[in-house]
Amino acid sequence: MSNKAAVLVAGSWGTALASVLADKNMEVAVWTRNEAQRDEINNNHRNDRYLPGVDLSPNLVATSDMKEAVTGTNAVVIVAPSSAVREVASMLKPYWHEDMLVVHATKGFETESLKRISTVISEELGCEEGKIVVLSGPSHAEEVVKRCPTTVVVASLDEEQASRAQDLFMNTYFRVYTNRDMLGVELAGALKNIIALGAGMSDGLGYGDNAKAALLTRGLAEITRIGVEMGANPLTFAGLAGIGDLVVTATSRHSRNWRAGFMLGEGKSLDTVLSSMGMVVEGIRTTKAAHTISEKYQVQMPIAHQLYNVLFENLDPKTAVEALMGRDRKTEMEVITLETWEQWHT
Amino acid sequence: MSNKAAVLVAGSWGTALASVLADKNMEVAVWTRNEAQRDEINNNHRNDRYLPGVDLSPNLVATSDMKEAVTGTNAVVIVAPSSAVREVASMLKPYWHEDMLVVHATKGFETESLKRISTVISEELGCEEGKIVVLSGPSHAEEVVKRCPTTVVVASLDEEQASRAQDLFMNTYFRVYTNRDMLGVELAGALKNIIALGAGMSDGLGYGDNAKAALLTRGLAEITRIGVEMGANPLTFAGLAGIGDLVVTATSRHSRNWRAGFMLGEGKSLDTVLSSMGMVVEGIRTTKAAHTISEKYQVQMPIAHQLYNVLFENLDPKTAVEALMGRDRKTEMEVITLETWEQWHT
Repeated sequence: MSNKAAVLVAGSWGTALASVLADKNMEVAVWTRNEAQRDEINNNHRNDRYLPGVDLSPNLVATSDMKEAVTGTNAVVIVAPSSAVREVASMLKPYWHEDMLVVHATKGFETESLKRISTVISEELGCEEGKIVVLSGPSHAEEVVKRCPTTVVVASLDEEQASRAQDLFMNTYFRVYTNRDMLGVELAGALKNIIALGAGMSDGLGYGDNAKAALLTRGLAEITRIGVEMGANPLTFAGLAGIGDLVVTATSRHSRNWRAGFMLGEGKSLDTVLSSMGMVVEGIRTTKAAHTISEKYQVQMPIAHQLYNVLFENLDPKTAVEALMGRDRKTEMEVITLETWEQWHT
Repeated sequence: MSNKAAVLVAGSWGTALASVLADKNMEVAVWTRNEAQRDEINNNHRNDRYLPGVDLSPNLVATSDMKEAVTGTNAVVIVAPSSAVREVASMLKPYWHEDMLVVHATKGFETESLKRISTVISEELGCEEGKIVVLSGPSHAEEVVKRCPTTVVVASLDEEQASRAQDLFMNTYFRVYTNRDMLGVELAGALKNIIALGAGMSDGLGYGDNAKAALLTRGLAEITRIGVEMGANPLTFAGLAGIGDLVVTATSRHSRNWRAGFMLGEGKSLDTVLSSMGMVVEGIRTTKAAHTISEKYQVQMPIAHQLYNVLFENLDPKTAVEALMGRDRKTEMEVITLETWEQWHT
């Protein structure tokens, strides 16, 4: 691989991943449309809106020119918001070639189409999905730029691409595992935001650690259930992209999803919550998506269902929790067929 | 079932489980050898050493007489410390009969023999292990007595016994799931204390949420690995007794295991930690047990191994974490054979 990488775009997570690469003495081009941000990175080595107070490596150079960003590199990292991924991928298309490794670290679905991010990117690049790698896991950007020990997973349909991504990122403080279940990694990363929202709601209602742990565990069970129905490996949800990411998101007051849920639990309306957040709360959009998906696949998602009712049907959060506690007696184990196991046995 | 239940002994978790039953209008006898504690419960309806400031139900009656405690009941709950379970079970033996439901809620192994708690109880009662039910999951006693929503799992080799235990405990704030993997539930409950210790150590070293989430996830992977080798269902570890309990234990400053790990991370010696705790730290004993078990089954447990070195071989905690981060490149997925899946497919 060449010693140059490109990161599209310069949000907090994109800048953090660029810093990991810069720490390996790579030349990293960060692409951003925002010229003030570009100049701030190049002149002051800072990106203060997204990572306040952090000094960036001089190996990290910003540009607003896509051609300049990706010329001479065969490693491109896409970290755009889910709503912008298609456009960014289409801008990359003219410079894409067979040998280019494309890693994305965007969590969510494309709005309306509900397509996964790797599907959107491969459609725009006109390549097989196996060419795309997803990177996910428990990773606050603020900690990664401070070189705190962090562990992530990379997954691809093509194991060779996943290994290339592992080699690209792995360093002394950033440990990278591979997984061949790209579908599971992408689903877990998106759907876990619903459960983080629910955990915040439980905290906002003043329930305790027992309730929150139950929500995380039963929430994990239901996103695993829908994931398996869609073709994912159940164990992926017990891994870094599932429970790992869920733990950091649902127990951190810095998480937008947790915070939105907390306000709902306190009795605030969705409108009040949204206007006070001032930005997109992925978990709210994903709850709507999960509602559609669970109907399509005929899979029960009781927590997502109750959250949907709180968000969009004016259900009182306390009534929602009582409904969850009052369900029929159940066994903990999911119905997972032998075909599923056969598909994933190693 | 009769309307009487017995709980042996009156620690915080025993008293909390007794309160759940008392809230279902059952007559509950709590057995304790401590006569002052017995009188405090009967006269003041309090158990202030274990549950300070909590008013107990008048349905809850304490006794120091085993015969009196268990006569006229066919539901007995054993919640003794792991070191006392064998003795308590032997005292129960003269009153045990085939129709008696025996549920235990003790986490750990018997010292030296490393036997599971249900094995110890069935040996003493002279009955099949299928007669015993284990109850586990994320459940701070302090929250249960306040009727905070709580979710647990009961498991037995005999599904009918597990269903009886589910019926016994389930109420509006205490939701009970069944699971037929008793081995997995017991192993998860015991082994998760090692990971809680490691999470505390990471916090004591000043590492962040990313590192802690990685430890929880990779720790879960390694206790799953040893559990599967011993015959457990991997999905049990992703359930309430595994990740659920791990989350409450590892993220709560009230957990003795977390606290002991935190002090080790700060650089305190094991002797200092133990003397300042003033009581048994289960995770330390379990780390030793895991060391023996992982050698016996030839299963890698890198986190438990590094913790063992910190606890018993004077390894510096920071060096231990660096060793974990610096391991070979790995895939996230465990090698789980198709036989395992076949055994557990439903």
